Formats: sequence, structure tokens, C-alpha cells
Amino acid sequence: MTRLKLGMVGGGQGAFIGGVHRIAARIDGRFDLVAGAFASDAARAHASAAELGVAPDRSYADFREMAKAEAAREDGIDAVSIVTPNHLHGPIAEAFLAAGIHVICDKPMTATLEQANALIKAAEGSNASFFLTHNYTGYPMIRQARQMVANGDLGDIRIVQAQYLQDWLSEPADPDNKQATWRTDPAQAGGGAIGDIGTHAYNLAGFVTGLKTKVLSATLSSVVAGRSVDDDARVSLQYEGGATGHIWVSQVAIGNENNLTLAVYGAKASLYWEQENPNVLRFTKLGEAPQLITRGSGAAHPAAEAVTRIPAGHPEGYLEAFATLYHEAADAISGSAEAHSAVLGLKDGLEGVKFVDACQRSSTESSSWVTL
Amino acid sequence: MTRLKLGMVGGGQGAFIGGVHRIAARIDGRFDLVAGAFASDAARAHASAAELGVAPDRSYADFREMAKAEAAREDGIDAVSIVTPNHLHGPIAEAFLAAGIHVICDKPMTATLEQANALIKAAEGSNASFFLTHNYTGYPMIRQARQMVANGDLGDIRIVQAQYLQDWLSEPADPDNKQATWRTDPAQAGGGAIGDIGTHAYNLAGFVTGLKTKVLSATLSSVVAGRSVDDDARVSLQYEGGATGHIWVSQVAIGNENNLTLAVYGAKASLYWEQENPNVLRFTKLGEAPQLITRGSGAAHPAAEAVTRIPAGHPEGYLEAFATLYHEAADAISGSAEAHSAVLGLKDGLEGVKFVDACQRSSTESSSWVTL
Amino acid sequence: MTRLKLGMVGGGQGAFIGGVHRIAARIDGRFDLVAGAFASDAARAHASAAELGVAPDRSYADFREMAKAEAAREDGIDAVSIVTPNHLHGPIAEAFLAAGIHVICDKPMTATLEQANALIKAAEGSNASFFLTHNYTGYPMIRQARQMVANGDLGDIRIVQAQYLQDWLSEPADPDNKQATWRTDPAQAGGGAIGDIGTHAYNLAGFVTGLKTKVLSATLSSVVAGRSVDDDARVSLQYEGGATGHIWVSQVAIGNENNLTLAVYGAKASLYWEQENPNVLRFTKLGEAPQLITRGSGAAHPAAEAVTRIPAGHPEGYLEAFATLYHEAADAISGSAEAHSAVLGLKDGLEGVKFVDACQRSSTESSSWVTL
Amino acid sequence: MTRLKLGMVGGGQGAFIGGVHRIAARIDGRFDLVAGAFASDAARAHASAAELGVAPDRSYADFREMAKAEAAREDGIDAVSIVTPNHLHGPIAEAFLAAGIHVICDKPMTATLEQANALIKAAEGSNASFFLTHNYTGYPMIRQARQMVANGDLGDIRIVQAQYLQDWLSEPADPDNKQATWRTDPAQAGGGAIGDIGTHAYNLAGFVTGLKTKVLSATLSSVVAGRSVDDDARVSLQYEGGATGHIWVSQVAIGNENNLTLAVYGAKASLYWEQENPNVLRFTKLGEAPQLITRGSGAAHPAAEAVTRIPAGHPEGYLEAFATLYHEAADAISGSAEAHSAVLGLKDGLEGVKFVDACQRSSTESSSWVTL
Repeated sequence: MTRLKLGMVGGGQGAFIGGVHRIAARIDGRFDLVAGAFASDAARAHASAAELGVAPDRSYADFREMAKAEAAREDGIDAVSIVTPNHLHGPIAEAFLAAGIHVICDKPMTATLEQANALIKAAEGSNASFFLTHNYTGYPMIRQARQMVANGDLGDIRIVQAQYLQDWLSEPADPDNKQATWRTDPAQAGGGAIGDIGTHAYNLAGFVTGLKTKVLSATLSSVVAGRSVDDDARVSLQYEGGATGHIWVSQVAIGNENNLTLAVYGAKASLYWEQENPNVLRFTKLGEAPQLITRGSGAAHPAAEAVTRIPAGHPEGYLEAFATLYHEAADAISGSAEAHSAVLGLKDGLEGVKFVDACQRSSTESSSWVTL
Repeated sequence: MTRLKLGMVGGGQGAFIGGVHRIAARIDGRFDLVAGAFASDAARAHASAAELGVAPDRSYADFREMAKAEAAREDGIDAVSIVTPNHLHGPIAEAFLAAGIHVICDKPMTATLEQANALIKAAEGSNASFFLTHNYTGYPMIRQARQMVANGDLGDIRIVQAQYLQDWLSEPADPDNKQATWRTDPAQAGGGAIGDIGTHAYNLAGFVTGLKTKVLSATLSSVVAGRSVDDDARVSLQYEGGATGHIWVSQVAIGNENNLTLAVYGAKASLYWEQENPNVLRFTKLGEAPQLITRGSGAAHPAAEAVTRIPAGHPEGYLEAFATLYHEAADAISGSAEAHSAVLGLKDGLEGVKFVDACQRSSTESSSWVTL
Repeated sequence: MTRLKLGMVGGGQGAFIGGVHRIAARIDGRFDLVAGAFASDAARAHASAAELGVAPDRSYADFREMAKAEAAREDGIDAVSIVTPNHLHGPIAEAFLAAGIHVICDKPMTATLEQANALIKAAEGSNASFFLTHNYTGYPMIRQARQMVANGDLGDIRIVQAQYLQDWLSEPADPDNKQATWRTDPAQAGGGAIGDIGTHAYNLAGFVTGLKTKVLSATLSSVVAGRSVDDDARVSLQYEGGATGHIWVSQVAIGNENNLTLAVYGAKASLYWEQENPNVLRFTKLGEAPQLITRGSGAAHPAAEAVTRIPAGHPEGYLEAFATLYHEAADAISGSAEAHSAVLGLKDGLEGVKFVDACQRSSTESSSWVTL
Repeated sequence: MTRLKLGMVGGGQGAFIGGVHRIAARIDGRFDLVAGAFASDAARAHASAAELGVAPDRSYADFREMAKAEAAREDGIDAVSIVTPNHLHGPIAEAFLAAGIHVICDKPMTATLEQANALIKAAEGSNASFFLTHNYTGYPMIRQARQMVANGDLGDIRIVQAQYLQDWLSEPADPDNKQATWRTDPAQAGGGAIGDIGTHAYNLAGFVTGLKTKVLSATLSSVVAGRSVDDDARVSLQYEGGATGHIWVSQVAIGNENNLTLAVYGAKASLYWEQENPNVLRFTKLGEAPQLITRGSGAAHPAAEAVTRIPAGHPEGYLEAFATLYHEAADAISGSAEAHSAVLGLKDGLEGVKFVDACQRSSTESSSWVTL
């Protein structure tokens, strides 16, 4: 297996998702982190680099400089991970794609539709690839679910119910909590719950079912007084072909940590999955006893087995699912023969940004039905 | 404890809910079933009476005759249970109330709003009482939840999510299944899923939280082709005071039997309950570990203890919850000193019928917001 | 269906299990409680009778007098329920059997082996029947499990694991708690946890698997200092045919209410059941996904359906399971054509008493292997 | 953080646990795998090295040669992971300790007590350290449990119940399954289920409770006909201070994958944990509602937080728990100021081997009580 050289923008001291990406990149041993612009403040950037074992000459405070310098080095990075607040994703991705460096970008792809379109246009001139990390798509039982829907095990899909409930924003954000402050600032986040977790739920529903959205109707709410972004959102979807989708995301649902669930109801059978207990997929055929399909077991399909590292009963978690996206990106970058139909890119990123935009439009227009 | 004499209308051979009411009436030994018009067909009515140990002279084929005859007997019934298809509830209740006989009626109170108003008007002239059996309100952990909300344990209520999912109508109804045929016939049922189970979910949300509905928006769907009533419904509620409610009921959600759940999110804490595992109530204060409050345990409140028959860990189920409603009706009829604030009557019945009516109006008007 | 006249010995004010038997007798409407010796203290006995609606002339303070008087009445009771402390079961049962009155007796059958043998001898001269209420055998999913083992669905049974964990005796018994005091008094109870709940676990294992015990080894412990009976017990069983059984019962296992579980492992498949969530049976074939078989569903066997009252998803509980034993006793007494292979009698009662005796012998002999 | 150079013995193509150790070593970025004797067959060894990106000059077929060569290199490995079948652990560990190279060794430490004693003696002359990977000790909720017991939250410990159930050996081992064949060969494994998983259960019970074993009684069985090692084992422990322990491990319990559970009952409260759902710890105080303490939540203790990588609700799994052991070994090797009281070494390894030996002795002597 080829081992790739990785850079990172964002993810310095005090950040959350940067650390996750670094572990995800390491788990399958396909990437070495060798460069980074870990913060826009130079002192913090270099301190982070030192902590992370990145050589001083490859620690940058400016992502544009980093893209240029790394592209110029013979031993320059193959790919860069973008783990900044959302409003910076677009410009950074453009800079690296322009430099011919592959981009692995956290979701949502951009904070605004304008940025998304600009990025897609910019990407046309690059032969580097863009990978979007909707990490929940990496769970083996999600791959199992996707395979089962594709195989027709559920019959025609009728109803899709995706929920993502959290409670960490149940009170006004503590100004000292960096995560909470940027995620509740419209300028940096581009949206509240709908962008932060709604995009995950929407993406997951589409990833598993393959259904295409015709129109949607959304109601975005700010439950906590004084909050300037939505913290609770309800979206109804009409899919092409007649199925309906329903998304509920909340960041004020006390007692929920990262309670992402997906239920898919077909004419013949249903599937149910919970992110907090991700190694099990419940499958029920009409009139039969529900079955508990577990990761790594004899009941798992090849699509699940392909992203399974350890035997049944030894739980894999969030980091392994995330690592699968890095693994598949490495395969794609290396030109591995294995086609990864599960890899998400610019098209998926654009759809996510359009989804947020459509939800915001619908919500401000009395929850009217709108197209993406 | 006074022991009361009970009659029944409906519930003959082949019926379902009649048998449930009879067991519920027996469990606490407060009623003896001594009369009935178990079917409109005389032969079937009398055969049922014989099976049920009801004396031939108190077996009727006509409910009006029964009301008259029983009112005339010195040992006539104290109360009658109405367990017919919905469209007959109103006329039957009127007849017995007019005869001065207490009525215990299955939900919804009537099939139409007209019937409901007629019944309420008719009831004004009677000194007999009307009891509505929204049986899920009888579960001890529902009483616990109600008490906790009233005590302020959750803080201000923000979001109420009630779901009632079934799968028994996932395919076109078998014409030989009596339950399925009348429940999917608009003339007899007055509605589909929204009337059959939506009223339960709506009632339960209000029962636990005490919230009053300002407006609602509903989308009723017929997922199974050719069905003339709704089999899947989504309702959003705006409550007085600012909380929102959300109801999803479905009869085509494969893998769900009677999966009624209620989640109540407040500013300080939340509650979660599942009808299929009803002896547990999950309570989570913001920032603390979720607690599993069980029926009969030291953590249960007096309101729950009052309707608990056996110690913790020995599950009580659906029939005991139902029996609690009969028990409380017996107390009320007997003029027991214990006031039963939990008893539901005409006002609650009217609200349920208005709820169905409002949902149907909203749904036909593009899910617009309507008042009850 | 014949309706039978029932008497009761024990179960007066302040008792627990008497109330359970009364509800169980009522649920299916097969018995009317018309007589009783509810306490040995006359005042308490008559006060209880009055509360329970039993006529004064059929309220007794002495069970022998009651047996005689009821046998002499033309409208005398058909059967008597015995719900006293264990050490009285034997003498009372003898008195009623001698009077030709059927006996429905709580477990264990007697407090000592001597009493058990005396009862069996006494019963030989009676044409009345003896019914033992190991109530957990009445759960539909236990009937399902029994049927599946009998059908060979599990292959040869290898290992049976039965556990019954409680925590209500985690501290020294409160002298004011009547339940706790008699159950921890060797003279009245005949044993501690091993008799109170161990017999249930042992009976259930045998009921489901049909296995016969060859030898057993037991360790009975008194975890709480100063307790004169066992409150925690471990028993190993060697069954005829080579399977092994393992029983753990405890009354000091904090966090357990009535956590009775049964696991049966065969060469081809396994079963797992929990009393606190009794409407589900987990069935797993080697190499396949576990299945959740639910009461009332299409996956349930006729043996389970026969004791099911209401549809799937509406939980039946402890009282319904108990009621099934009363129902089946009524059928047997009435000479119903339906043979009830599940009915337990003197032979089962004797085995339970021998089980306790053998455990006590083994435990005092360094847990040596002993026969029953 | 210092980054260490790691070698590995065993873990070539077709092995299972070697891959796990490699991921565990990578997750926190504290080790680089730079050398290995991945197999005793030279061709397989070098092929594995190539696959794993280990330079040809650091790929060895003989572990003694590897120890010598690596010790001689200036850039030689800091530590070696031993992931061979059990009977080779001892000799390999001796060779590397003699060469001054730290050892990270899979459990059990050795296949026999003789090997264990020899290793301990050999270790005396080395200043390198020995780390034993009882990986389940790395789960955050296990650290939480340990801290809670130490804090006295449970009161005096009374009963410890540890179970580890699997089903992968429910049938005679497939001769083509390398895992199954060496693990059921007494010469290579040194024991069956008792060594393979019994040592984990025993270690975990001691790790969490801190209790020391006085005597034990064991029954080892071979349920599958023709198997030459035990596949099901029951062990009772008497701990110093009066608590009892109970271990059940099985490899023929159909429907269990890696169902390791630990229950600890104290005089005041209890804890319950399941490896297959490891992010939750159930804690129940006598008379109060059970609490679900989750990893990463506000209810987690510092000992749990210290080994937590990501926020609550995003599950960490088996690989992260394993990685924690590597992380803590790296800290210890680097002389990090943080004392790691959780690190396991030779003493723990010896106790595990003594445990297996004592179980085997007890079992062959009619389950008599023996000391370790």
C-alpha cells in the first residue's frame, strides 16, 4: 500500500475536529502528517506543529503560502486536510486544488452556495481530487444498509426518517467554548444545526437509499433565546419516485449526545440504525422477526466486510468509520484498482450546501416547498 | 370498594377491543359484566352473551332497547362500555346518557365533529358521566412523567415529540380482517391512522405536558396505493406559551408493532418513554447521567404509585394500564373521595375529534396552520 | 366457559402475593372469590373479607373449619388458593384435598421435604387436584421457548443458565417489613433466596428444556451479616444426557429488581429471555443474525399464541402470565378437552422442595455433588 | 510527545492480533513500526514486511537475530510487540529484555507457569520494561469503574461477576482456520477458553476492584466432543476481605460474539458494564434510579477522561481501548511524569498464568479450592 504525505489546515491547539482527522488519517497507516498551517496566528501555528511532530520548515501560518511551498517541494504533500471553521473551507480548497494538491475537506463543503459554486468552478482547472468527509458514511453497518437497499431487500422505499439529536447547545453558548461560539456564529458557520448536523442526516439518508430530492419544506427554529442561528430543524423531503423523507435535527434535545439514527421503510422490509451503537443494524421483513445484523458477522454483506477491521463483537467506533474515508481517499489518490463508489466529492458537497440553502429559503418563506 | 354492574355495546365474537375492555374491567374487581348488546346481529349478539356468561334476558341486539330496559331494572347496569366502530360511539353514548347510565367509551369519542357536538349537547341533560379510554394515560410511568412536568422538574417545556408507529397495514387490507376493514373505511372510522392512533399520541402529549394547542399543521398520506384513508401522518403543533409539538404516526412502518413513544424536552431536563417497555421512564437533567426510573421503585412518585399494583421488576402491561381507567371510573361513579384528576371525559373527547378534524382540514389545505 | 367458585387461605391485609393471586384469578373471568380464611387472626380475617366483598358467613379464621364448611355447602368453593407463608402450604393443602376441594398453591409447595412427602401421601386419597403456581411458566415467550426446544430448533442442549437477581434484601431486613421478615425466617420460609427465587429459576430451566437433573452442587451464602438464611446462591446441575445447568440467585444484587433471565445454548442455536422485558425472545442460530421473536407476532408458535390475550406490541406482563396458570387450572378442573401439558402439580412441587433440600445438603457438605 | 520506534514479532499475513496491535500503536501517533520478525518462515516474514512498509534490512525471520541486530543499531527499536501464539511469548520476551529492548506482549504472558517464572527471572537482569496488553483495561468506562470502586462509591465489595461469552468454537475447529487451530492446541495455547478469554475476565475483575484472590475453585469443560482444551469454564473466587468472585467464560455460547461483561455489587451500590456497548457504565445506588454514565460526558471521572479522545456520543471502541495501552506504554518508556497506575507488567502477567494453572489444577482435582 502506498503511503501518502499529508498536510493540514486548521486543527491547532484547542480545536476538536483536527485531532479526529489526524487519528483517522493514522489508523490504517496510509498517511504521514508532514506539514500544516494549524492556525492563522503564527505563534499558535508553530506551537501546534511542534507538538504534532511537524518540522518547523513545514509549519505555516498562511494556507496560501503553504499550498505554494508544498507544491514546489519535491517531497511535498500529496493531500491536505481542511479542518477550519466552515466559511474558510472554500478558499482553502481552491488554493490547494490550484496547486495540484488533493483536498480532504470536512463538511459542509462551504458556508455559502456562492462559495460552493466558486469552488466547483475553480476545481475544473485542477487535476487534483476533492474528498468530502461525511464520516458517518464510513460505518460498516451503513455500508451494509446501502447494499441491502440497492439489492432490493426492502422493496420500494416509502419513508426515510433521519434524526440527529444533541444537547450541547441547550443553553446560551459559553463565550469561552470555541466550538460553541463559531458554530453559533452565522458568519463562520453558514448555518446552525441545519448546517452542522442537518447536512450529515441529509447526506446519510441519500447515501443509504440513493434517493434524489425533488422538493423540500423546512422549519428552522432558534429554541434558545437570543441565538442567531437555528438550533432545531425539521425538514420534509419529497424524493423522486414518490418516497418521502423526514429529518429532525436538534442541538437542544437534552439527554442526547450524538444520537444520529436512520430508519428506512420499504414495501417489504425496513432498516434501523443508531450511530451511538453503530455495530448493529436492525432489519425486519414484514411479518417476520426483526434480525440484528452485526458488523463482522456471517450476516454482513461484502460492502460492510470491506470496511471492517476486526471481528464481530469487538466494537469499531467513530474513529474507524472516519478512518475508512481516509483509507478510501488514499486508494483513490493512489489509483488503486478498487473503485470506491462510496467516496464523496464536489457533487455531494454542492448538494449539501444546496440543502442548507434550500432549508433556509423554505423556512423564511413559511416552510414552502422549494427545490434544491 | 363498591362493585358496579357493567353493560357493553359491541365487542362480540371476532372483535378485539371488547375483550380488552372486559379484562380491564375485571382486573381490579370493580365491575361485573351483566348485560350487553354485543352485536347488531341478534344471533351473534346472543351467542356472544352466552359465551360471556351474560344472562339471556340481559342480552340485547339493539343498544337503544338495552338502554331503556337496563334503566328500567332495579338491578340495572351502572355503566356501559362502548366498543363499537367509531361512527356508532356518539349515538350509543347519547342513548345511555339519556337513560342515566354512565358511559365508558373507547376513543375517538366520535367519528365526526358533528357527532361530538351532538353528544356534548345531549350530555348536558344527563347526570350520568362520560369516561373516555385513552388507555395509555393509565401507565404508571406516564403518571410519573405528568407529575414531573407539573413539578417543574423539566423546566419550561420546549419540544414534545410523540410517535406511534405500527406496521399492520403495510399492505392493502385483507377483506377478511374485520379490524383492518373497518379501520380503513372512512365512513366507519372517521379517519385513518390519524384517528386510530394519532389521537392517542396527541392526547398523551397533552396529558403529560398540560400544554394547550394554538395551531397545527398536518400532512396526511396514504402510502399504500388504493387506500381511502391516511396510513401515515405528520403533525406539527404550536402550543400556547411557545413550545412546539411534533407527532408522527404510521401504520406502514415495518418492524413496529405498537411503538408509541413520547419525548419531552424542557429547558432543564428531558423525559423519554416507550409503550413497548412501559415500566421504565428515562429522565435526564442537562449535564447529568440519564436515570432510569422504574415503576414501583423508590424513585417513583406518588402519582405513579397510586396506579401501581405489583412491585418493581414484575412488569405491568397494557391491560393493567387500561384497568386503571376502569378503576378510576369506578371511583368517580362511586363518588370516592379520591379526586381523579387523570380521568378523561367529554372535553377531552371533543378535543380529540377536533384534532382529527383540524389535521384533515390542514392536510387538504397544503398543510396550512389551522386552529382546532 | 365454566365459571368456578374460589376460596383463599392467606392474603389478608398487608400481604403481597394474595392480591396477585386474586387479580390473576379475575383476569380471564374464570373464578369468583366467594370464601376465605384471609388471616389466622379473626378480626383481621373478617376485615379483609369485608374489603374483598366476601360474605361474612364465608369468612373464616381457621382453614380447617373453612375446608369442612365449604365442602358441606351445596354452593361450596371448587378450589382454594393458598397464599400463606411457605411452612403452612402443606397442612392447608392437605386439609382441602381431604375435603375434595382443588388446591392452587403458591410455590414452594412446602417448606420442608417432610411436609412435601406428607402432602403427596395425603393427596393419594383425594380426587381433587393440586396446582402449583410457578407463575413465570405462564409467559407466552416461555411457552414459545419450550416449544422451540421440544421441536429441536436448538439441537442438543448443552448449557442452561438461569439467573434471578433482586436487591430488596441488600440490607438487614426491616423488622416492620412483613415480606422481608417471614422470608428471612428459616422456620417460616424453609430457606432463603434458594427457596424464594431459586425454585423459580430451577423450575423454569426444567420447564423450558425438559431436562432431568442427575446431580447438583450448591453454595448458599448469607452475604448480609447476621442473616439466618441464604441471600445469594450458586448451583451447578448435571442433567441426564450430558447438558449442564447453572443457577445464580441473589437478593443482594443492587440494581436488580426481578431480573430473572434464562439462556439455553444448544448445538445449533440459542435462546435468551428476560422476565423484565418478557414479550421478546432472542433466538440465534449459529452463524446467523439474532432474531427477536415477539409475543403475538407472526413468528410466535401456537404454544405461545394459546396463552396470548392481546396483539403484538401491547405488552402483557406478570399478572397475565400468572392469570394463565389460573386459566389452565380452571380448564383442568372443568375437564376441558384441551390437555394442558404445562400445568404443574405435586410432582413438580416435590421436585422443587427436593431441589432446595439438595442445595442445602450440598452447601453444608462443601458443595459436594448430591442427588435430589 | 516522544515518538518511539517499534518492532514486532509475529503478526504476519493471516494473523489477527498483529494487525490489531499495529493499529493500536498508530492511533495516538506514538510509535512507528520499523522492524519485524513477522513469521518464522523467511519468505512469509519478508513478504509481510514489504506489505507493512518495513525496510528489507529490518525484516527478520528469527527473533533472536532481530533482538541482537536491533540492539546493535543506533536507530534500533525502542520496543517490540509480541503477537505470536502463547507458547512463544516467554522466550521472545526474554530475548528482547536481555537486549535492553522494551517488550509489549499480548496476553497471557506465557503458556506455562514454568515459562512465566523463567521470564521473571530473566527480566531481573534487564533495565527494559515489560508491558502486558489486557486491552479491555483501556476502555474509559473501565477506568471510570475502577475509580468509583477506589473512591468507595460502591461501599464494601460483596460480589464480582465477570463473564466472557463467545460462540466461534461452537463446532469442531475447521483445520483451515489458523486462529481456531492454534487456540485449541494445548501445546501452543497452554489452555483453552480459560487462557484465551478467562484471563481477560479474571484480570478485568481484579483491575476494577483491586481485590486479591485467596483461593479459587474451577470447572473446565470441553463441550464440543473431541476437543483437547476447555471451551467452557466456571471459576469461583474467594477474595481477601470476604468478597466472592464468579467467572464464566465460554466459546460455545451461540449468539455471543465477544460478550464480556462485568458486574460489581457493593454494600451501597453496583456497577455494570458490557464490552460490546462499552461507552456506557450503569451505576445504581441502593434504592435509587440506575444511572447511565457515558464516556466523555459530565458524569465521567478524570480517570476516564484521561483516556478519552472524542466527545460523548461518538463511540470509541476496541481499537481505541487497545491504543490506550500503547499510549501509556509510550509514556512510561519516555519517562513521562504522568505515572500510569493502570499499566500492567510482569506481576500481572504472572498472576494471569498462575490463574490458568490454578484453574487447571482445581478442575482436575474435582473443583477443589486451591491457591494461585
